[in-house]
Amino acid sequence: MRNIMTSIPAGVCSLSDYEHRAQQVLSESVWAYLSGAAMDGHTHRRNRQKLDDVLLQQRILCEGMGQGSCQQTLFGRTLALPLLIAPLAYQKLAHPMGELASVQAAAAQGVGFCLSTLASSTIEQVAEVSGQAERWFQLYCQPSREETLRLVRRAEAAGYSAIIVTADAPINGVRNAEQRAGFALPEGVSAVNLDALAKPQQGDSVFACWMGQAPDWQTLEWLRGQTDLPLLLKGVMHPDDAIRAIALGIDGLVVSNHGGRVLDSQPSTIEVLPRIRQAIGPNLPILLDSGIRRGSDIFKAIALGADAVLLGRPVFYALAVAGPLGIAHCLRILRDELEATMALCGCASITDIGRHTLFHND
Amino acid sequence: MRNIMTSIPAGVCSLSDYEHRAQQVLSESVWAYLSGAAMDGHTHRRNRQKLDDVLLQQRILCEGMGQGSCQQTLFGRTLALPLLIAPLAYQKLAHPMGELASVQAAAAQGVGFCLSTLASSTIEQVAEVSGQAERWFQLYCQPSREETLRLVRRAEAAGYSAIIVTADAPINGVRNAEQRAGFALPEGVSAVNLDALAKPQQGDSVFACWMGQAPDWQTLEWLRGQTDLPLLLKGVMHPDDAIRAIALGIDGLVVSNHGGRVLDSQPSTIEVLPRIRQAIGPNLPILLDSGIRRGSDIFKAIALGADAVLLGRPVFYALAVAGPLGIAHCLRILRDELEATMALCGCASITDIGRHTLFHND
Amino acid sequence: MRNIMTSIPAGVCSLSDYEHRAQQVLSESVWAYLSGAAMDGHTHRRNRQKLDDVLLQQRILCEGMGQGSCQQTLFGRTLALPLLIAPLAYQKLAHPMGELASVQAAAAQGVGFCLSTLASSTIEQVAEVSGQAERWFQLYCQPSREETLRLVRRAEAAGYSAIIVTADAPINGVRNAEQRAGFALPEGVSAVNLDALAKPQQGDSVFACWMGQAPDWQTLEWLRGQTDLPLLLKGVMHPDDAIRAIALGIDGLVVSNHGGRVLDSQPSTIEVLPRIRQAIGPNLPILLDSGIRRGSDIFKAIALGADAVLLGRPVFYALAVAGPLGIAHCLRILRDELEATMALCGCASITDIGRHTLFHND
Amino acid sequence: MRNIMTSIPAGVCSLSDYEHRAQQVLSESVWAYLSGAAMDGHTHRRNRQKLDDVLLQQRILCEGMGQGSCQQTLFGRTLALPLLIAPLAYQKLAHPMGELASVQAAAAQGVGFCLSTLASSTIEQVAEVSGQAERWFQLYCQPSREETLRLVRRAEAAGYSAIIVTADAPINGVRNAEQRAGFALPEGVSAVNLDALAKPQQGDSVFACWMGQAPDWQTLEWLRGQTDLPLLLKGVMHPDDAIRAIALGIDGLVVSNHGGRVLDSQPSTIEVLPRIRQAIGPNLPILLDSGIRRGSDIFKAIALGADAVLLGRPVFYALAVAGPLGIAHCLRILRDELEATMALCGCASITDIGRHTLFHND
Ligand SMILES: Cc1cc2nc3c(=O)[nH]c(=O)nc-3n(C[C@H](O)[C@H](O)[C@H](O)COP(=O)(O)O)c2cc1C
Ligand SMILES: Cc1cc2nc3c(=O)[nH]c(=O)nc-3n(C[C@H](O)[C@H](O)[C@H](O)COP(=O)(O)O)c2cc1C
Ligand SMILES: Cc1cc2nc3c(=O)[nH]c(=O)nc-3n(C[C@H](O)[C@H](O)[C@H](O)COP(=O)(O)O)c2cc1C
Ligand SMILES: Cc1cc2nc3c(=O)[nH]c(=O)nc-3n(C[C@H](O)[C@H](O)[C@H](O)COP(=O)(O)O)c2cc1C
Repeated sequence: MRNIMTSIPAGVCSLSDYEHRAQQVLSESVWAYLSGAAMDGHTHRRNRQKLDDVLLQQRILCEGMGQGSCQQTLFGRTLALPLLIAPLAYQKLAHPMGELASVQAAAAQGVGFCLSTLASSTIEQVAEVSGQAERWFQLYCQPSREETLRLVRRAEAAGYSAIIVTADAPINGVRNAEQRAGFALPEGVSAVNLDALAKPQQGDSVFACWMGQAPDWQTLEWLRGQTDLPLLLKGVMHPDDAIRAIALGIDGLVVSNHGGRVLDSQPSTIEVLPRIRQAIGPNLPILLDSGIRRGSDIFKAIALGADAVLLGRPVFYALAVAGPLGIAHCLRILRDELEATMALCGCASITDIGRHTLFHND
Repeated sequence: MRNIMTSIPAGVCSLSDYEHRAQQVLSESVWAYLSGAAMDGHTHRRNRQKLDDVLLQQRILCEGMGQGSCQQTLFGRTLALPLLIAPLAYQKLAHPMGELASVQAAAAQGVGFCLSTLASSTIEQVAEVSGQAERWFQLYCQPSREETLRLVRRAEAAGYSAIIVTADAPINGVRNAEQRAGFALPEGVSAVNLDALAKPQQGDSVFACWMGQAPDWQTLEWLRGQTDLPLLLKGVMHPDDAIRAIALGIDGLVVSNHGGRVLDSQPSTIEVLPRIRQAIGPNLPILLDSGIRRGSDIFKAIALGADAVLLGRPVFYALAVAGPLGIAHCLRILRDELEATMALCGCASITDIGRHTLFHND
Repeated sequence: MRNIMTSIPAGVCSLSDYEHRAQQVLSESVWAYLSGAAMDGHTHRRNRQKLDDVLLQQRILCEGMGQGSCQQTLFGRTLALPLLIAPLAYQKLAHPMGELASVQAAAAQGVGFCLSTLASSTIEQVAEVSGQAERWFQLYCQPSREETLRLVRRAEAAGYSAIIVTADAPINGVRNAEQRAGFALPEGVSAVNLDALAKPQQGDSVFACWMGQAPDWQTLEWLRGQTDLPLLLKGVMHPDDAIRAIALGIDGLVVSNHGGRVLDSQPSTIEVLPRIRQAIGPNLPILLDSGIRRGSDIFKAIALGADAVLLGRPVFYALAVAGPLGIAHCLRILRDELEATMALCGCASITDIGRHTLFHND
Repeated sequence: MRNIMTSIPAGVCSLSDYEHRAQQVLSESVWAYLSGAAMDGHTHRRNRQKLDDVLLQQRILCEGMGQGSCQQTLFGRTLALPLLIAPLAYQKLAHPMGELASVQAAAAQGVGFCLSTLASSTIEQVAEVSGQAERWFQLYCQPSREETLRLVRRAEAAGYSAIIVTADAPINGVRNAEQRAGFALPEGVSAVNLDALAKPQQGDSVFACWMGQAPDWQTLEWLRGQTDLPLLLKGVMHPDDAIRAIALGIDGLVVSNHGGRVLDSQPSTIEVLPRIRQAIGPNLPILLDSGIRRGSDIFKAIALGADAVLLGRPVFYALAVAGPLGIAHCLRILRDELEATMALCGCASITDIGRHTLFHND
């Protein structure tokens, strides 16, 4: 296996540099798993394409920019920039430190961190090393409510400050690249927080095997009654689902298509974001997930209605290339890019960002 | 010649995998014939492009999905998924078992099968091995009505349950790739159900050689009077033709551009489908043909007004790569993909699919 | 130098095949001259792109197609298909027979032929071998009216049946590919019908050097008074120019951007055609020039308002690859493709073609 | 190091030829600096794309074109064509003569020249060799007003006829290509007109380090009071900024995104130009900058509201390939292309160019 990098390779100055190098250091099958998308990858590419299509409105000679800052407050906690590390399963695939590396990088850079239900480090281990990092627990509802509740209680006990329920992946995506590469979890990497992975039920169809044990709105309502932590719903792509979630007492939404990994041929999240914001009004926090690669993407997401963003695959790439340092470097790059974008568009704070700071192509 | 595969090669998990491998195992000229399209292939590519452009609307936490199913009933018969194998000439080009392989795969997977007039196996041979498969007979009207009627009677006698008349190929398409490759039917592959292939008539023009002996609306009217089987018309691309066909008592339509093999520069079928559905109202069955490669394409076709789809070239590709097993595998892949798409878009049955399950890019 | 082909190479079945092979048999600099376009070739590519974007409306089971034909009558003369060979300078660049080859191919296939002012064969030589071919003379107005008139009188005397005045090339296009390749006329190829090529006048600017001696509307008015032959104007791209030409008594228009060889960044001709037809009403003949490569392109041009088309570069390519036989082959290919397109769109004659035989995308 | 070219290489006939050759003669890191753009280069490419998308309206047989000219008067001075060489830092990177070469080429071809604050030759040296060239001084406001004023006074003293204040680059662009290549100024190339380059201030953010010392509207107002020279503002991309500048007494605007080098994801300048012209009315001069590569681009800019254009990177490329002669050649190419475009669109003077000389794609 490759050496574990302890420094940042020369010439690495953007998240795409990490991506290219990660492909070189990772095995083909791990690469296929981490980078892969559902079916033909249309949605994965569209996530980027539609972010690129959003245009910025530059401004000049603005007053009072010397005191600017990109800090953002979410559920009462202040982040150095409006970003959290997305919940990402099995981070030890990329580096022996796995989730411990990423939560420490998050702490160092003042961003939030979401721990996946399918983490390869325990809820408690991560809590222990996470220092000041705002940390949330991502919940995949388990076939039994008991098991689900056990996870929530452990997260509460370990000081996680929010629960983020992922609802868009009741079944595995049809990820052909991963299948072609024959990916399987290597020895030593597993979902250590679960007694066992959910198994398909008896049956001949996707419905019978998987959907019978998938969470539904009742599950969510039940869950809402079980915890006082802020509860977020990840994977919202329809305004009606957003409204229904709020009616149940959900505290925040993540507009996400799971990085294009579950259902291909979906729209990009940046297209959907304004409709969700429009549907629910200005108050409830929305996070934009899927496709974020530049500080300017964060700016665009905020301008179109988000309060913060999640960062997915690049965390893996940086971890593979340069360990915790690599992730910290990525986070710093994003912050610098975001600040530069704000400065050049005349925004001294996150609240200055809005539709008027975009260029509208009539 | 290559070995006849009896198992599915590793890493094959989508219909496109079969396509790539088929190109490797087939001779250049057979490949050119099977994969080819008219002129510059614009319509062939557009069939795919426009299917890809249709966007899906994901839904989350839907109730009652455990009992979902993608079964569909057509003319009183139930299919495991809303799909039939398209009529495809000369299937022995791809595999010695030819049509016998594909009808058996169809039976195994519970989908329908259309036997081409230009099949390389006889109507009766295919009937014999087809088991439970819903099988239809595709009719190319012959220059003489007698000969046409003889084909219909054989199909009736052999238990085919519908006649599907192909009307969009009165002349050969200008298939340059095939011409460049110098394709000709090899020894041992021929249209065994015909006494002789229709020959061009005397004359200097396409009109004089071919169009004088082509079927017209009177032919169809006559044919309608000759059989009680459900009669479908394949190759409908204009609403007025759809309406006229219904007025004559046709039982179903196939919106098809023959996979882009006859007239290039046509629109894709998925673009035309909603106009045909709109013109004829909700009742009469419509099949969507040309370009189907994913289970999600079936979902899109249903959402835009189809009752089922036909699958063309991929059948050849799977046959060439892995024989009847390959076709069965393709059909299963499509079903799994369709079920996954339904589950993720909140549709527990085919009737749940509709315009509202698509994302409209306003 | 290469051998002169006397037969059609195997596998050549479309005009693009001739194009690819011509590039192989021609010297780099002659290829650059023949195939080249102005500046960056945007207009040249757009000519094709916008023709490709026009969609055909297929029809089925049409009655009475056996008697169909693609003949077209223009100025009282009947062509086997609505096409003329465009005026093309220096055809001996591609083949020693030059214009004599192309006019004979035109005669053999029953299409029209335009002889360029810059032909490498004399007006009289071409007339002598042209047989039944409808032949027109393309006039570049010369700096002196005398010289201009002399050309017209020679054309009249030699039995040319129309004069087509090219107005869109008062200066050389900025053809960088040609400049880079250092193209110059080889020994033995020259404008044999002129005493001397027009030379730039004294001056530092394009205006002073060239535009002072360029024809203007007065020149055209004068010319109209000098001949009773039908007079056509080539290079019309603005409705007002079309109207002004008609007011002067012009008999027909050629919508042309000179194959994208003079002014880059122009629209394609197929985009402009409907505007010109709309401006001048249904009666006066319009020819569509630039980008025709398929019989279906002819169909599209007719549907959008043209009476016939001109064929440019492909004539050169076929001439280079297979001499007069090659050109005849190209013309036959175009006719077969046009007839096939008509048959499949339900048009038994050129007058059946119209807007309703196109598919309208919205 | 490479030889210094003293003649124009064969086959170089467009600005793109210079670009391709420059990449060959320059070191990778200098190439990265000169050719580079911010982040992913979207805006840089869009500058070209959107210029290419503007379509020209050809006209024929126009009267009185022999006396045409592309001269343009700006602030009372007549230019041979409506173009100035953009302010470009450190021109000695491309050629030992640096700015002295480009100002001499400008003089020879009768175009204007802007000297950058970051020039590698002194204000006075350039003045000395600049002959008849209309020369402007580009000002980067320095952290201290004294230093800023000293630059203005030197420019006035040396006979520069206008001050052009660049406002769109208060911070360095995120130019990844340059960072990857590890570009640094080589020995012997520096900003000789400054005592010292502005250094970042203490602080952890882009805001604290850079924006506190960036100029704002008050700086501009102060500056307006300090000089009687025409004052232009470079980097205007918002109509409100244009209006505010005019209210302060600014004499002209440069619509520019700095060649896409500062803020990526901005619109192209040609898209923004009409909005700025619309906002400020017809009188005040506007220059269009970023992406000009063809004489036809100048025509398009004028048609959409500009009075002249700036030429950036190509100056570097020509300088690197063929020294002052190369730049002069480029300028002559642009003039010839502009004149050809005007002649073919029926414009005998710059004032004839307008919206009606473009083709509007409905
Ligand atoms: C390898 C991998 C594993 C993931 N695991 C999880 C997970 O366990 N739980 C979850 O909610 N999302 C998971 N995601 C989705 C991410 O949280 C996030 O939605 C997605 O990566 C965002 O898109 P991006 O990668 O384009 O930034 C995973 C994504 C990847 C790439
Ligand atoms: C090699 C080949 C042979 C075909 N033969 C027939 C035929 O005999 N009768 C018919 O109605 N359609 C025939 N078709 C058309 C198919 O029925 C179907 O319309 C087309 O393949 C659908 O497009 P697809 O290949 O993109 O799925 C043929 C298609 C191919 C590729
Ligand atoms: C090599 C060459 C020479 C040409 N010479 C003439 C000419 O002498 N007179 C003229 O009116 N057009 C001339 N044309 C333009 C053609 O008549 C015609 O407008 C153009 O080729 C049509 O575009 P196409 O090549 O895409 O079919 C020439 C074109 C080419 C390619
Ligand atoms: C290497 C380089 C250095 C530049 N230096 C300056 C500068 O010192 N001051 C300035 O106002 N603009 C500067 N610019 C921007 C140019 O003035 C101009 O806006 C830009 O190059 C125009 O885009 P174009 O290169 O596509 O023509 C520079 C551009 C380049 C490429």
